[in-house]
Amino acid sequence: MSPKEKILSLLKAFASTDKMGSFFLDNASPDFLFIRPSGNPIDANGFLEMWSSGELILKSAEITKVHKFDLLAPDAAMCVFTLGSKFTYKGTQNDDLPTVTSIFKKVDNQWKVAWMQRSSGQSDMTLWNN
Amino acid sequence: MSPKEKILSLLKAFASTDKMGSFFLDNASPDFLFIRPSGNPIDANGFLEMWSSGELILKSAEITKVHKFDLLAPDAAMCVFTLGSKFTYKGTQNDDLPTVTSIFKKVDNQWKVAWMQRSSGQSDMTLWNN
Repeated sequence: MSPKEKILSLLKAFASTDKMGSFFLDNASPDFLFIRPSGNPIDANGFLEMWSSGELILKSAEITKVHKFDLLAPDAAMCVFTLGSKFTYKGTQNDDLPTVTSIFKKVDNQWKVAWMQRSSGQSDMTLWNN
Repeated sequence: MSPKEKILSLLKAFASTDKMGSFFLDNASPDFLFIRPSGNPIDANGFLEMWSSGELILKSAEITKVHKFDLLAPDAAMCVFTLGSKFTYKGTQNDDLPTVTSIFKKVDNQWKVAWMQRSSGQSDMTLWNN
């Protein structure tokens, strides 16, 4: 598989109802942080806690569209995508379409997520040209 | 100057009241996009229009803190920082502290901004460990 295929396959595994919460524990670099819409960072454990609280229940998730993939070096890449997800938060249904900027690094021959920043959930998909 | 010094110097030039609006016209790669807190993308011209509308008046800007700098390759880097800015929007004062994830690429021996995603403006600086 090419680096792009491997990274898209990682993202597909991330966007799943059974793996999302714990995904970064196994698939992120040690200094990984996830930046929330507020700008506040959480690490892999914080991300798991968020999904383990019981207040947030993921119904479905998908990589709705990959807007940009750029192999910056043999061992580094960036990927920007829309992450479609349906979930309930304290019982209220949400239908989320955030834009996510992510950085990947190859560590010991394995691609790992090194950074992820997501926007709020109501992006307008028609504003992307391609 | 090292790549880090050059990139921080670029960011310092970006965070200025006289240059911010037009900054990406001269200092971004051709496929640059700026991702707004909503997740919606704008290009260098859209960014300039936003600051030229007259509704948005920048009073001051600074790179409040660099949380992460990573030279991913000799010609690619990522930088995550808090962009402090004071501005008025339709007459209302704002004091903004967004988290920004940015990607840089060296093109024809010049460092260019290749991508930028910013959060909403009220991040909590105490949540960063270092």
